[in-house]
Amino acid sequence: MKCKFCDNNAVIELRAYNLKLCDEHFISFIENRVEKTIRKYKLFNREEKILIGISGGKDSLNTAYILNKLQYNVEGIYIDLGIGEYSERSKGKVLNFSEKTGIKIHIYNIKEDFGMGITEIARILHRKPCSVCGVIKRYILNRFAYEHGFSVIATGHNLDDEVATLFSNVLSWQEGYLARQNILLPQRDEKLVKKAKPLALISERESAAYALLRGIDYIKEECPNAHGATSKFYKHILNQIEERAPSTKLRFYLEFIRRGRRFFEQDTKEGETQLKPCEVCGFPTTRKVCQYCTIKKEIQKRRG
Amino acid sequence: MKCKFCDNNAVIELRAYNLKLCDEHFISFIENRVEKTIRKYKLFNREEKILIGISGGKDSLNTAYILNKLQYNVEGIYIDLGIGEYSERSKGKVLNFSEKTGIKIHIYNIKEDFGMGITEIARILHRKPCSVCGVIKRYILNRFAYEHGFSVIATGHNLDDEVATLFSNVLSWQEGYLARQNILLPQRDEKLVKKAKPLALISERESAAYALLRGIDYIKEECPNAHGATSKFYKHILNQIEERAPSTKLRFYLEFIRRGRRFFEQDTKEGETQLKPCEVCGFPTTRKVCQYCTIKKEIQKRRG
Repeated sequence: MKCKFCDNNAVIELRAYNLKLCDEHFISFIENRVEKTIRKYKLFNREEKILIGISGGKDSLNTAYILNKLQYNVEGIYIDLGIGEYSERSKGKVLNFSEKTGIKIHIYNIKEDFGMGITEIARILHRKPCSVCGVIKRYILNRFAYEHGFSVIATGHNLDDEVATLFSNVLSWQEGYLARQNILLPQRDEKLVKKAKPLALISERESAAYALLRGIDYIKEECPNAHGATSKFYKHILNQIEERAPSTKLRFYLEFIRRGRRFFEQDTKEGETQLKPCEVCGFPTTRKVCQYCTIKKEIQKRRG
Repeated sequence: MKCKFCDNNAVIELRAYNLKLCDEHFISFIENRVEKTIRKYKLFNREEKILIGISGGKDSLNTAYILNKLQYNVEGIYIDLGIGEYSERSKGKVLNFSEKTGIKIHIYNIKEDFGMGITEIARILHRKPCSVCGVIKRYILNRFAYEHGFSVIATGHNLDDEVATLFSNVLSWQEGYLARQNILLPQRDEKLVKKAKPLALISERESAAYALLRGIDYIKEECPNAHGATSKFYKHILNQIEERAPSTKLRFYLEFIRRGRRFFEQDTKEGETQLKPCEVCGFPTTRKVCQYCTIKKEIQKRRG
C-alpha cells in the first residue's frame, strides 16, 4: 500500500480520513492538524507562555514535542502524585524526555502540600482516587501557571478522551458539563488561567503512532488507580462504533463543538455558577472554601 | 428466588428496577407501567378511538392486548407490505390474534396503491427498503386513521427502539429529529392524527417476556429487509452498556424526555418547517408534493 502523497510505502491507514500515509507524511499530517486546531479554535499564539501538564504518557509528551516543534513558547510541569513505582517510572520518562528535547519541565511533588501521595489521600477520605486526583491536579496546574506568569495551560486530552467524556455526559444529560466541554476553556477569572486541548482532534491510535515514529519514549502502563474506569469502558464501546462506521467519533465530537454545545450553553448562561475567592487560598471557586483547601484541611485534621 | 411482592417464585429479574417478580406480578407491573405512561404523558383517554399499527411482532400485539385489557377503545390495522412469505406469516399471526382476542383488525394491502410490494418498490427506486417502508407506513396509518375517525395512532415502539433512535440522533446531533422525538407527537394539523407510544418505557426483553407469559403468538423472525440495520447494531451497543450499568437505557431516555429534549425544542421552534397540503393528495407535508405521492407517481411512471 502506497502513501497518498508520495511513492513511499504507507505505514498507517487512517480510515476516518480515508488516508494511507508514509511515516513522513503521517508526521506532518498530525503536526498540521495540531497547528490548525490551535488556529481555528484560537487556543494561543506564539507570544504566550504555555504551561503543559505532563504525565509521562504519550499524549502529554506529544503535546510538548509538537508545540515545541511548532515554535510555541512551552514549558512543562510534572506533578508527582506519589503513586508508588508508577509515579517513579513516569517521572523517569519525563526527565529523560526533557533532557533529550531541551524542553524545561518543572517537577512538583504533592507531598509538599499533603505529606502523602494521592492513593493514601483517597483512602483516608474514602473517596475514589480519580476524583481526588482530578481536583488536585487541576488546582496545582492553575496555581502554578498563575504564579509563574503562564497565560495558558495545555493538556494532552486526545479525541478518545474527549469523546468518552462527551458520551458519558450525554448518557446522563449533564447539561452543565455539556455546556462547559470545549477545546478551549476561556479565562473566566483573573486567577483562573485559560485551558487548551491542542490534541483534541487526534485519536488515541494516531497519538500512539506519532510517539512511536518520533521515538518518544513514554510510560505505556496505565495508572493503577484507573483500573476498571468507566471512561475505559466507553472508549471500548466507541471503538466498536468507529470500527463499523469510521469517523463517527470525530463527527460526533466536531458536530458537538460546532452545533451541539450551543444548545446547552444558551440554557445555562444565566444560571452559570458565580466564582468568588476561596476563603483560605484566594483562588476562584463556586464554594466558600475550594475543594483543594477542603481536602488539605481534612487531611491535616486526620493526621493530627 | 422469590417474587418481591408475594411468596411465589420469581420468573424474571428486572435489574433496571432492582426487582424480581413472579408471572402474575410481572404482568401487572407491565400493565401498570403502560397505564401510567398513558396518564403521565397524556397520550389518550377512554373516550378516544385509537388505531394501533399492527405488524404481527410482539410489541404491536402487546400494545393491542394491553390497551384492550385496560379498556381503551382500540382497533388495529395490519399493513400488508408484500414482503413475500414474511408478510404472509405475519398476517397469519395477526388474524389469529384478532380472532382470539376479539380485537378488530383492518387489513390494508399496499398493492392496492402501488400494484407491488415494498421490496420491489425500493428496488425500482434504488432506495433502501426501510426508508421507503417508513414513509409508506406512516402515510397509510395517518390517512386511514383520519378517514375512519380515529383521534390517535398508537404504535408498538419499545424502549430499545426509542433509545436506539435517540442514540443515533445524538451521535450526529440531528437537532431537528431530537426536537421531535417524544412519547406523544401532538396533532400539528387537522389532517395529521396525533401519535402515541404507550410501550416507550417497556424494554424489548420485558415485552418479549410479557408476550410469552400472556401466550401471545407473534412473528419471531425479523423482517428480511432489516438485515444489518444500524438500529440493530446500536441496540447491541446499548445492551452492553445496560449490562454494565443496569437502567442506563431507561435513564438516558427518560432524562432526554424530561430535560434533554427541551434544549433542541427551543432552538427549532421558530424554524419549524411549515406544513401545507400536498398538491396531489391534500394531506399535510413540508414539500409541494408529499413523499408518498412522489413515490406513487414515480412507480406509475416506471410501470408505464
